[in-house]
Parts: sequence; structure tokens; C-alpha cells
Amino acid sequence: MQAARQARFMSMSRTLVRSHVRAQKAKLFLTASTSRAQSGSVASTGPAASQTPPSPIPPPPQPQGKWRHFLQTLGRVTLVTIIGASATFYYIAQKERHPGPQLPFDPSKKTLVILGSGWGATSLLKGLDTSDYNTIVVSPKNFFLFTPLLPSVAVGTLNARSILQPTRYVTRHKSRQVLVIEAEAKEVDVRNLTYLASNIKLLYNVSRLTKLLRSQANDSEIQGQISSTTIPYDYLVYAVGAETQTFGIPGVREHACFMKELHDAEKMQRRFLDCVESAAFPGQSDEEKDRLLHMVVVGGGPTGIELSGELRDFLEEDLKSWYPELASRIRITLVEALPSVLPSFSKELIAYTERTFKESDIDILTKTMVKKVNEKSVLLKGPDGVEREVPCGMVVWAAGNTARQISRDLMAKLPEDQTNKRGIAVDDYLRMKGARDIFAVGDCTASSYAPTAQVASQQGSYLARVFKLIAKKDKLEADLAHAETGEGAEKLKKQVDKVKFKPFHYSHQGSLAYIGSDKAIADLPIFGREWTSGGVATFMFWRSAYLSTLFSLRNRSLVAGDWIRVKLWGRDVSRD
Amino acid sequence: MQAARQARFMSMSRTLVRSHVRAQKAKLFLTASTSRAQSGSVASTGPAASQTPPSPIPPPPQPQGKWRHFLQTLGRVTLVTIIGASATFYYIAQKERHPGPQLPFDPSKKTLVILGSGWGATSLLKGLDTSDYNTIVVSPKNFFLFTPLLPSVAVGTLNARSILQPTRYVTRHKSRQVLVIEAEAKEVDVRNLTYLASNIKLLYNVSRLTKLLRSQANDSEIQGQISSTTIPYDYLVYAVGAETQTFGIPGVREHACFMKELHDAEKMQRRFLDCVESAAFPGQSDEEKDRLLHMVVVGGGPTGIELSGELRDFLEEDLKSWYPELASRIRITLVEALPSVLPSFSKELIAYTERTFKESDIDILTKTMVKKVNEKSVLLKGPDGVEREVPCGMVVWAAGNTARQISRDLMAKLPEDQTNKRGIAVDDYLRMKGARDIFAVGDCTASSYAPTAQVASQQGSYLARVFKLIAKKDKLEADLAHAETGEGAEKLKKQVDKVKFKPFHYSHQGSLAYIGSDKAIADLPIFGREWTSGGVATFMFWRSAYLSTLFSLRNRSLVAGDWIRVKLWGRDVSRD
Repeated sequence: MQAARQARFMSMSRTLVRSHVRAQKAKLFLTASTSRAQSGSVASTGPAASQTPPSPIPPPPQPQGKWRHFLQTLGRVTLVTIIGASATFYYIAQKERHPGPQLPFDPSKKTLVILGSGWGATSLLKGLDTSDYNTIVVSPKNFFLFTPLLPSVAVGTLNARSILQPTRYVTRHKSRQVLVIEAEAKEVDVRNLTYLASNIKLLYNVSRLTKLLRSQANDSEIQGQISSTTIPYDYLVYAVGAETQTFGIPGVREHACFMKELHDAEKMQRRFLDCVESAAFPGQSDEEKDRLLHMVVVGGGPTGIELSGELRDFLEEDLKSWYPELASRIRITLVEALPSVLPSFSKELIAYTERTFKESDIDILTKTMVKKVNEKSVLLKGPDGVEREVPCGMVVWAAGNTARQISRDLMAKLPEDQTNKRGIAVDDYLRMKGARDIFAVGDCTASSYAPTAQVASQQGSYLARVFKLIAKKDKLEADLAHAETGEGAEKLKKQVDKVKFKPFHYSHQGSLAYIGSDKAIADLPIFGREWTSGGVATFMFWRSAYLSTLFSLRNRSLVAGDWIRVKLWGRDVSRD
Repeated sequence: MQAARQARFMSMSRTLVRSHVRAQKAKLFLTASTSRAQSGSVASTGPAASQTPPSPIPPPPQPQGKWRHFLQTLGRVTLVTIIGASATFYYIAQKERHPGPQLPFDPSKKTLVILGSGWGATSLLKGLDTSDYNTIVVSPKNFFLFTPLLPSVAVGTLNARSILQPTRYVTRHKSRQVLVIEAEAKEVDVRNLTYLASNIKLLYNVSRLTKLLRSQANDSEIQGQISSTTIPYDYLVYAVGAETQTFGIPGVREHACFMKELHDAEKMQRRFLDCVESAAFPGQSDEEKDRLLHMVVVGGGPTGIELSGELRDFLEEDLKSWYPELASRIRITLVEALPSVLPSFSKELIAYTERTFKESDIDILTKTMVKKVNEKSVLLKGPDGVEREVPCGMVVWAAGNTARQISRDLMAKLPEDQTNKRGIAVDDYLRMKGARDIFAVGDCTASSYAPTAQVASQQGSYLARVFKLIAKKDKLEADLAHAETGEGAEKLKKQVDKVKFKPFHYSHQGSLAYIGSDKAIADLPIFGREWTSGGVATFMFWRSAYLSTLFSLRNRSLVAGDWIRVKLWGRDVSRD
């Protein structure tokens, strides 16, 4: 963009210079004429004017003139575009920053409680018409985290805050105020009455909350006088996500870094730089250096792949400059239990990824299980069934999800309906089985879909539409209750029956992953056919796709800004 | 800048449009002429050309033509400037990112050990000619922190990483390689021989180091096999700075936030947002809300003042949008033991600051001592001698420096020379008294100068010059030793005597402070006279002064970028 702009300016300046030079030459032979003609002239007809008599017939247009005219128009269009664009940008920014007044809570409306602030919850909030409900959002984080870019944060390609969006940035722009509570839901209470009809209202549903105590920030924890409360709800959207699956492998929780929350990424970055600095410490043995500079990434899914790729970029583009004596020693190993990485991608892209990783010296160990994680090593069991202890400085754990405690508790309350250990079982309308006023979306559910951001956000926007319909139906039923029998009632009945709920349908938009060295891979279903591509062009597509997926112009410009920063200045190696 | 540029473009486009319109009109009456003349013409002489005969006398230049010519020139200059500037910028950026090869350590050179990576150490590194020494930098941080902007980081005006500069970004650009060790010096060993001449070389000086264990990041701590070593030095520059002075007041360490290191700023930000979120928790009593939203800043120096100002900006510009129900309750109180804030500034600026703070509802309590800091309150003793317990959500401690443990240990080794409890006593040449090969700069010294960044950095660059001279003198003396008597020796002797060390002289460049609401104050000595100013213009000056003080173009552009970010998008309120 910058470059393109400059190019345009250069062409413009060329035109200007040319015309100017001519003006100078021409002045010497300038013909006398009325001031009107003068003021109308840009330069002059040049020497010829004094030799040939004027003729009223317009001559054929000169290519030169045409070309200049084209450039002038181009220049003008560019300028207008730039000015217009910046104005719009500024306007939107100011609008996003200064939300207007909102309607207060309305006691006559039903209460909709949303647990979580991730993909599902946020895309629901985006689409929800809050004028129909008194909405309450409860989450231990007061922000939405754009998880797909977490690996970029872990190596400093992006600033942490560039992929955060405070939940209030969404809710404050809603027509009716939304109560946002930074807290962790401790228990969801379900007293299920009889199973009457769809959307039957349960009585006395309450969800108990207690103020979250963040283990990794206890020192900064502020306790208010009131730190626990109970919130009744009419409808509950359960979008608490999942926690990292360790498969009960010893040492994972103690010694490995995860890649799920923001603090995981920050911790990994600090650890990685700790390893490098410790290796740089004078007198370290070569063996110990190699140990410290060996990074093991567990999990061949998109997260593990992107993290390995980003680590390799950090190494190539930055560490080589600042730690030349160490850079050559850094090794990255990717461990995957399945026969291949990226199972969700097509064969050729898997092959392409493996080729690219080979070129950038990232070892891939497939069919390999992690048996144990120690402080300074990891115990691997290869396809040959032999267990080897591999020394390493850091283990990053990017493998699998499992249900959170609160989800397990909730499921335990509906034993006959909730039989799936993986997560909350839901019907085609995303209603939790056995509790008709609880809707569940995203990673906390046990559905046939992969636990991806794409699924969760589609489920969220589906629920936004559902709640619009529910509000409509509730209103009609209320009217119906008050309407005396006869025609009016009949009409209302018809309208009520007209309100139909379509089941949730997931439309796969494709899979994308960054694999390092400015290359990405993409599996896109276009007109029913699978379209696969990999390389630098796909990387550009990956970037634009992620930019457009970011929820706000603010985050888009911040992330784009970070990409430019890294292009110009690289990632910094300070361990804060 | 952006705006100015756009303005220029608009004026340019206006000219273009005007000339184009004329060109269109003119075409109708275009005079026939040779193609050369045609190709030479920008538009035409207009209708008049067909009426009047050509004359060789050039007419007086028309104001219109002049005006357009001026605009065209302006346009051209602007374009050339922009393109040139961006090219240079990109070139410098790439050069900073990709340092070249360096000379290896040279056993014949003396070893210069620098303890610290703050203002003193970094400005010394900037100026030092590393070809004269084998240089080793030892610091618990592997980066330089631009401390004056720490309050801006604490409220999210700046990204933490914008004011960091990894020490290697400096050392890798030096002619000879510099060993940078991320470690904390545990002990400096001094065996002082007899006091012979200036720069006498001490034998067996060693400084013992152990790998730092960062208390606030234990979880991420990596221990290398070798985590402690001993480094001999010929010259030692002691620039370890100071730690926060708590005056032994109970509860300060436990419950207050400091404002010295990066993690202090991050902790304060998290705490501040914790207070706000806890106050937003449903059912909190008004009294408790007021308690949580009362911020107490202790210390009326520049740090305390700027922090209060930044907090107020955060409140006015951001919190009002996202926490409308709370914003009005937030209160900021600044506590200062002395009779007035900013003792280093002139009377009128103090008055101006107090006025500004009054307007922005920041309470200033002067002549007030902090007696005790509790978890939820602070015990203050006012000028009337009465002690009052003030409930508050957060206490920020920005008051005073004291010597670090290692400095106290070092001083204890030279009891007869090091008698000043405040810090290391140095002579006029910044040599530690009693240890002629140790130089001390910055906050760790007990000098007549204020413990400011300005003093430390001037001392650092002074030492860079001193070490150049020392290297020269050492070389001459070595030659002298080898030279046989006679003329050559005489000449060398003369040269040796010529090498004179000037004592350190501090030249005060003035004092600056930001006081919130886009206002700053400045005390500048210009031609011997004190020039004072305060207001929005001074704020612009404050910004440009800080930008130019930042050590690298990288940091300059990052900080400038953050300022634009905040102008556009505001600070974000997510508590990560």
C-alpha cells in the first residue's frame, strides 16, 4: 500500500516536473496576448505559435497529452481516495471510542446470562439484539482473545494487546446496557421441571458466581467486600470453552508451557528467552547449550505447526543477528502421536508442510508419544516402541482439549441426558440436553464438529438469530394469553405457529495455517470442490483472512501495525 | 505531520484540477502548430491566441501563474521529501536490524566490566570505543528501560516493549564484540594495593556473579548447569542504580506498587483494572466502590506527578466511555511529605501544576507523611499532626532511592573511604574513592547531583571519553617502557604528560514533566537564564524532547506509533 502510494506520487511528480520544464522553455517565446488568455494558459504553445497561423480546427489529441492527462487523473483519484479513506478511518475510530447512552435494564424483559467471553460468546454478543433482553456477561477475562494469533504473540511478532478486545468495547455499543462481570462461574444450578414444549421456562434457575482468583497474578489480586453473588437467569448461554488436555501424563502441568491463554504465550516467550540467555552464560558446556536451545513442541495441530513456524522465523530473522554464537545451535522438534501432522488438511498440504519444515530444520516426529515431561528433558516413545529421554530447554504443550470442572459438575446434574464425557451434549438447536433453557456453544460442547474458532463463532451468530425468534415468540404468546378468544386470538395463534426454529448448520469456510518462512497453507471449499494452496501467496491470503476475521477495525489496524513493525524492526529479544 | 502532508496534497490536487479544466476549455480553440510545439504545450494559449499576433517580448509574469508555479514546486518538494525520508528510514531500520561481523576478544587488551544496563551503562556503551577493550556487560535485565516513560506504560498509553531496548542492539553494532551477560552481580571484590599514581592497575580484582532468580517470574525461570561464575576485570564501571526507598514504613513492600522496573508498571496496571472490575462487581456497596476507586500516589516528584496525570487521562479519555457508572467515583490523591510538589521546579510552575491538578480533581496533600500502608487503606499524618486512616484501592509508591545491598557490601569493604550512607562516594573523575579502578555513575553514587536520568547519561558519555584517554595513555606508557632512552623516550614522556583528564562537569539541560490533560511544564536554562513554560505547547515540546532522548530510531518510531494509537483508539481496559 505504502509502496503503491509512493509509486503514484513519483509518477505525479514526474508529470509536474515535465510540464514545469516546458513552461520554462516556452516563456522565452511567449506570445503577447490578453491577460484573460494569459491567465488561461498553463504554459504556452511554444515557438511554433509564432510561425503558424491559428486555426479553429482541433488537432488530433497527442499521446503525450493523453498520458499526462491520465496521470493527472490518476493522481487526483489517488489523493481523493487517500483523504477520503483517512477521514472515514478516523470517523470510525472515534465512533468506536465514544459509545452513546444505552437503554437501562427493563424488569419486564427476560434475563439472558452468557458465560464466557471467547469466540462463541463474543460472536453472539455481536449479533444479539439486546433490546429484547437484560443481558449479563460473566467471564474470568474481561476481554476477547483472538486465539489463532497466540503463537505470533509468543514470539513477539504481535503485541499481546493487539489481539485483545475488551468485552465492553462490544457491549457498550449495544442498544440496551449489558452487565459485564469479571468473575468465574462456580456452579450452574438446574432444576428441570417436566419436559413440556420447546423453550419451556424453568423456574428458579440460578447460577452461582464467585470473584475469580487468578493463580498467576495473586500478588495483584484485589478483593472487593462483595466477592461472590448469585445471578438468576431465564436463558443461559454456556460458552466457557475447554481446558488443555494433558492425558494425565506426568510433569506436563509442572514443566510444560501451554498455548491457550494470553499468559501462556507471555510465559513461553519469557521462558524461551531465558533458555537463550542461560545458554549465553559464560562457561556453559556445549552439551548444556544444546539442551537449553532444544525446543520441543507437542501437538501437530495448527497451533503446534504455527508455533514451530513462528519460532523458526524468530530464529532466522532475529536471533541470528543478536546471538550469532548461539543461533546455529537452536533446534525445534515437533512431536505428534498420530501418523501425520495437520490431520484436518489434505494430503498434498501435509506433504508440503513436512517439506517446508525439513528445509527449515524443524524435526517432525510422528507416531511418537510423550510419556513424561521432566524439568530438563522429555521422555518420548517412538513408533518403534522404544522410549528415549530427550534433553530440552522448553516443552510447549499444544495438544487437545478437555471439559472444565464446572462443565463436568453441570453434566453430573443431568446424568440421564449428559452421557458424553467429552463435553456438554446439545440438540440440533444447541440446547443442552435435559436443560431446555441452557444453550451451549464452542469447545465446551461435545459435537461432531472440530473444536475450532470457526465453529464456535458460527454457533454464536446462530444463537443471536435464535434469541431474536424466541423474543418474538414470547411476545406473541404473551399477547395471545391476554387476547380474548375470537378472531384476534386465532390470528395470533397462527403467527405463533409461524415462528419456526431452524436447526444449526455449520458451513465450513476452509482451513488455514501458517507454517513459517512466510509460507502458509489453505484448504478452501470453493463451489463444492476442495481448493488447496500453499506458499507465499497463501501467506498473504492467510494474513488478509485473519485481518478480516478480527472483530474490530481497532484490532485490525493494531495487528497490521505490528506486522509492519516486525518487518521494519524485527522482534525484540528483551526478557521483560 | 499526517495532517500537514494531506493539506499539501489537497493544494496540489487543486492546482491539478484547475489546470485540467483550463486545458479542456482551451482545446476548443487550440491553435494548429508543429508537433514539437504541441508536445511542448501543457494546454494552450486559450482563445486570445487566435486574435493577437505573437510578439517576442515576454510579458510581466502573472500572479496566477506564479501561484501555480509555487504550488507545483511545493508539491514536488513535498513528494521528494516524503520519498527520500521513507527511503532513509527504511535504510536505517535495516542497518540497525542487521549488525555486521565484529572483532573477537583480544587477550592483549584490558578487560572493562560494566555492571548495569540503565542510563549510565547504556550511554557509556553508546560512546565507548570497544576496539580499545574487551568489554563485558553484566545486568539482571538484558535490556535498557527508558524509565521516564514508565508512568505512560502503567496506564497503557505506551506498550511496554516500546520503551525497551535490548542491550545487544547497542553492543552488536560495536567494532569489537561485547559479552552481554544476563545475571546479577553478587559481590565485587576489591584488593586495593598502594596508592601510587592515577589509573594504577589493581591485581586480582574479581567480581563474583550468580545467575539471577527473578522472584516475580520463578515459574518461568530456567537454570543452566553453570549458573554462577567469576569475572576478572581491569576496569569496572559500577552502574547498578538504586532501589526504592521505603523509609522502613510498615506495609509499603507488601501492599504498595512501585514505579521503578517494567514489572512494577505492569503490576500497577493490572491492579488498577482489578480495582475497577471489583468495583463493577454486582452488589458492591457505594462505600466499598469509593474505597476501591481511590488511588493514592505517594511522592510529589516528577514520577508521582506524571503518574497522577496519566491516571487522570486514562479516567477522562477511556474509563468514562467503558465504565460510565464508575468513572465519576474514581479519585486520585497525591501525597508529598515536603511543603510542595516538584521541589526541583520553579515557583510558578509548581503553582501551575497545583492549579491544573485542582481542575482535574487530583487532590494534593503536602506536608503529609505516610505512616503505614494496609491492604485496604493508608495511614496518613497531615500537617496538623493528626493521623487519619484513608481507605483506598491502590497505593503507588514513587518516593526516594536507597543503595542496593551489593553497593552497601562494596562500600563496607572500604570503610575509611566510603563513609557516605547514601551511596558510592566518587572523586571528580567519577572514580570510586579508595578503589581507583572502579568508576561509579548514576543513582548508585552519592553525589551533589539529583538522581536523574540526565545526570547518569552525561556521566556515562563522560566515562566513554575517559576510557578513550586511558587507552591512549596505557598505550603510550607501554611504548615508553619498551623504548630505549634518548630522544624517542623523551618524546613519548612528553606525550604521556600531555594526556590530561578533565573532571566531570554536569550541564543541566532543564527539567520537564507531564502533568496530564495534554499539559506539561518545563524549566529550561537558556543562555544562562531560567526559561519556564507550561501548557499544551510545552506538552508538544515534552513529547519531542522525550522522542529525541530515546536511544534508537526504533524506539522513537514505536513510541510515536503508540501515541498515534492512543489518539485513535484510546487505551484498552483489558486486564491481561
